[in-house]
Amino acid sequence: MELGIIGLGKMGFNMAERLRLAGHKVVGFDFNKDATAKLTANGSVGVNSLEELVKNLAAPRAVWIMVPSGDPVDQTIAKLEPLMQKGDTFIDGGNSNYKDTQRRHAEATNKGFNYVDCGTSGGVWGLKEGYSMMIGGDKEPVERLRPIFETLAPAKNEGWGHVGPSGAGHFVKMVHNGIEYGMMQAYAEGFSIMKAKKPLDLDLTQISKIWQKGSVVRSWLLDLTADALAKNPTLDGLEAYVPDSGEGRWTVTEAIDLNVSAPVITESLIRRIRSREENNFTDRMISIMRGAFGGHDVKKS
Amino acid sequence: MELGIIGLGKMGFNMAERLRLAGHKVVGFDFNKDATAKLTANGSVGVNSLEELVKNLAAPRAVWIMVPSGDPVDQTIAKLEPLMQKGDTFIDGGNSNYKDTQRRHAEATNKGFNYVDCGTSGGVWGLKEGYSMMIGGDKEPVERLRPIFETLAPAKNEGWGHVGPSGAGHFVKMVHNGIEYGMMQAYAEGFSIMKAKKPLDLDLTQISKIWQKGSVVRSWLLDLTADALAKNPTLDGLEAYVPDSGEGRWTVTEAIDLNVSAPVITESLIRRIRSREENNFTDRMISIMRGAFGGHDVKKS
Amino acid sequence: MELGIIGLGKMGFNMAERLRLAGHKVVGFDFNKDATAKLTANGSVGVNSLEELVKNLAAPRAVWIMVPSGDPVDQTIAKLEPLMQKGDTFIDGGNSNYKDTQRRHAEATNKGFNYVDCGTSGGVWGLKEGYSMMIGGDKEPVERLRPIFETLAPAKNEGWGHVGPSGAGHFVKMVHNGIEYGMMQAYAEGFSIMKAKKPLDLDLTQISKIWQKGSVVRSWLLDLTADALAKNPTLDGLEAYVPDSGEGRWTVTEAIDLNVSAPVITESLIRRIRSREENNFTDRMISIMRGAFGGHDVKKS
Amino acid sequence: MELGIIGLGKMGFNMAERLRLAGHKVVGFDFNKDATAKLTANGSVGVNSLEELVKNLAAPRAVWIMVPSGDPVDQTIAKLEPLMQKGDTFIDGGNSNYKDTQRRHAEATNKGFNYVDCGTSGGVWGLKEGYSMMIGGDKEPVERLRPIFETLAPAKNEGWGHVGPSGAGHFVKMVHNGIEYGMMQAYAEGFSIMKAKKPLDLDLTQISKIWQKGSVVRSWLLDLTADALAKNPTLDGLEAYVPDSGEGRWTVTEAIDLNVSAPVITESLIRRIRSREENNFTDRMISIMRGAFGGHDVKKS
Repeated sequence: MELGIIGLGKMGFNMAERLRLAGHKVVGFDFNKDATAKLTANGSVGVNSLEELVKNLAAPRAVWIMVPSGDPVDQTIAKLEPLMQKGDTFIDGGNSNYKDTQRRHAEATNKGFNYVDCGTSGGVWGLKEGYSMMIGGDKEPVERLRPIFETLAPAKNEGWGHVGPSGAGHFVKMVHNGIEYGMMQAYAEGFSIMKAKKPLDLDLTQISKIWQKGSVVRSWLLDLTADALAKNPTLDGLEAYVPDSGEGRWTVTEAIDLNVSAPVITESLIRRIRSREENNFTDRMISIMRGAFGGHDVKKS
Repeated sequence: MELGIIGLGKMGFNMAERLRLAGHKVVGFDFNKDATAKLTANGSVGVNSLEELVKNLAAPRAVWIMVPSGDPVDQTIAKLEPLMQKGDTFIDGGNSNYKDTQRRHAEATNKGFNYVDCGTSGGVWGLKEGYSMMIGGDKEPVERLRPIFETLAPAKNEGWGHVGPSGAGHFVKMVHNGIEYGMMQAYAEGFSIMKAKKPLDLDLTQISKIWQKGSVVRSWLLDLTADALAKNPTLDGLEAYVPDSGEGRWTVTEAIDLNVSAPVITESLIRRIRSREENNFTDRMISIMRGAFGGHDVKKS
Repeated sequence: MELGIIGLGKMGFNMAERLRLAGHKVVGFDFNKDATAKLTANGSVGVNSLEELVKNLAAPRAVWIMVPSGDPVDQTIAKLEPLMQKGDTFIDGGNSNYKDTQRRHAEATNKGFNYVDCGTSGGVWGLKEGYSMMIGGDKEPVERLRPIFETLAPAKNEGWGHVGPSGAGHFVKMVHNGIEYGMMQAYAEGFSIMKAKKPLDLDLTQISKIWQKGSVVRSWLLDLTADALAKNPTLDGLEAYVPDSGEGRWTVTEAIDLNVSAPVITESLIRRIRSREENNFTDRMISIMRGAFGGHDVKKS
Repeated sequence: MELGIIGLGKMGFNMAERLRLAGHKVVGFDFNKDATAKLTANGSVGVNSLEELVKNLAAPRAVWIMVPSGDPVDQTIAKLEPLMQKGDTFIDGGNSNYKDTQRRHAEATNKGFNYVDCGTSGGVWGLKEGYSMMIGGDKEPVERLRPIFETLAPAKNEGWGHVGPSGAGHFVKMVHNGIEYGMMQAYAEGFSIMKAKKPLDLDLTQISKIWQKGSVVRSWLLDLTADALAKNPTLDGLEAYVPDSGEGRWTVTEAIDLNVSAPVITESLIRRIRSREENNFTDRMISIMRGAFGGHDVKKS
């Protein structure tokens, strides 16, 4: 079938490719003309305006929005709405906050559009291995888009599903990323403990490879870690600085709002925040207190 | 080659079977005569005394000890030593503390025996899928036992390795289990958050299946979780009570001793401890304080 | 000077009393007629309508709102505004979210009113010991109310201060309560550890009394704890169930928004949430996983 | 009465002074001759050998050991034993691990000596304000030393007590320090959150002073913090590096051994460890994973 894709970054471009290779017609827009040119060169339709994008699709249209969460999504929708017609469908495939999604769904529905949210996991590997997709929204447009989801997924009926009403897809993806934070932190702590055990002189690359087969902790993340360690076993050149996108913080806030205690996901977020604190004020406050009651030597910088 | 196995529980029995199916001669002992009888019936040599076990093996012997960690290991070694001869090898395949292992290695080596530690992961699935093995000890006996490890492993050169000197195998397995705690807690928190989001009425079984394919959080643990949820999606009949064996606590203590901050593995252990605290004294202390300063209503039991 | 007080609960009534005893004229309103009658009996002016309250005060009026945070504050303001006149001042002395306060300040200011926020600490002890007050808002009304603050405070120039623009008072009080959560959890954990050390048979009441004098952990909270333990050393009749009002969660969310890592305040909140989770789903998820990979006995309920 | 004191550092010297001022005879030893000379100059008996110390005390002697925990305590006892006689008493006033104390008590008792453990809190302020003392050991020597404890304490019957058998004093002091860690971290986090709220431009010194009077979080630690902030409100020159002595780690390990969940005390320790980790390996592991699955930009150092 036909699909418009807005945003041809790492994720969007590869999704377009996976769809094209399966015989779908993809019309792709990006502000970056190199990306659209490349898309065209590969055999899809790269366009340089939203008008062109809409014109190149037959109604009822489906436009997959793959742009950074927040304002860019609202702006994209605002620009598209005048160009599209009732019955057309927006799919937000990015990492939007599910509350924004529910608001956008209500607004779009009021105007006669369909609005589907699709939490998309898979990273840069999706082109080859397929994307895991958690989909929220109304039944009719989700069913209509089935050929798209079946192609993007790792297999026809695997790795994707309609998980609930509007927002459910982004909610589940949000929690997915929260879990991801926790798993990454758990692995990273374990490797740090092994590295610190100097007398055993453990080879982290070797151990990561052993664990890939038959162990309880084997996972795709571990597979990637083993590959990365093989290339850079000392982590040279990497900075101890971990960004976080919104999903981790939203998961933590949501857990609190729902009165669910989630210490490990929360702590994983806190540690990312900690990685970015320089000349930590909390630690300096503790130093000044120790000096005050104990006359403890205060390490001066 | 030949191998004695002491302890034919869930792990030991299956390992014996995997070795037998590959053509090795296994002599197995257990206090449980049903287990030894079954081993014999399957085509291996089940025996009812350590004397018989040793007699049925040609020197240099290798005896795999698969008993609960702690005293049972020391007792087994103490009983075996008079029966065995210099150059024979003990393999501790259980979850011993690596410090005990290093002590036992020193003692055994002093008496002319070899002592190998093998952290073994794979659970009840090892018979079919093979075991992940992290091996510590001296090079010579580890090399001599290569045919055993190659058979027990998921594949000849995969899922096992000689990771370092005595204790290294159990150390790495200890950390492996610490990571396992963290991963389990991360998944469990995520599923709890989704379950608590009542208006979305999410189907945890469906979501676990979606994530198995293409998602960043896919793993063997998730595969097992998806299967278990499919059978019991409401977790009926399960108690909110989580035991912990030693490796989690050892990992936490070791991290502290090594001055490595490992909040997620630590918190995973603390939550298991918390699951077993009834009529929590800490919470009641907080209640009495709140009542004292705020006149807050104190919930009476 | 004159002050209207709306809300004569534990806090509001005692504040009225402290002001009256110092010679201020207090006009107090509450839906509870017993409270207003008692206020009148004590020598202040208890009234049963907001109209009466406003009538009994000379312009420029100051009305202290001491009602539960959230809607009750908005509703009270909405009812008062038509009765009051430009230049009158609202003081929100409750635990409002500072963002609500900033919104209300903007709205009130637009209409010509003054709006002061006062985070108030001291609990049921404030009548006797005075209240700690953290005040936000514009300089002029705060200065005008100085006689009120000097009376409510523990001493004329102690225990209160104008800490910043609108919202600053409630922000500082929010953080104050977050710290309070952490302190309470720290004490409670310590007492739990001592109680669990059965062979030493420690007397928690005795220890709390010892620590009150000369120790590094002495504090007002400890004083109250020692008194409470003396009355109920076994915590009989208390349930292991800890409510939380909004300030703890707001502190945690704010820390995340500000990219400040605050693990101890956060964990204190999480433990309160945990105290209210029955038949913990997270723990049961871990149980089902353990059963799945390890054949570990699953404790059935 | 008479008391020998070994170790005239910050704590030991001040204790000697407090005793002297109350009329006790103090004989003090330190390797630092300036300290012993100063003691003598003040009116006590400073000596430069343990022999002299013992000679200057009449039997039954009491010797207060105030040296760093661990080997120095064992070495001091080993040197003293040949010089002392049955019925004499050792008091360990330092921060020894209670398990070492119990071992030393058993050994000393076997040889006919008394052995008392005294957890001592109060820091550099003890001279003026008195020391909080938690005492473990046998009843008879503790009673005999009552005049010493009554003098060192903040008041005759306040701030000290015989809390249990040998080891109980050090156990309670250990937990005391664990609580102290938690309180310090809670305050420090709170101040960090306030500092980070730039638009409110909060004055931390002012706020700490406000909280000292009437607030729920008032404490001696807060008093000291307020004084320290007044002198150095920007924490200039302090490094974000927090040492920890043994008691915090022992508290955490003990909580785990006792199956008491103590997340806040534990996290406080973990954060101190974190403050000393440079070029954090855990964070770099997470960076490499993020790069591997997401093609996320990896911040290069």
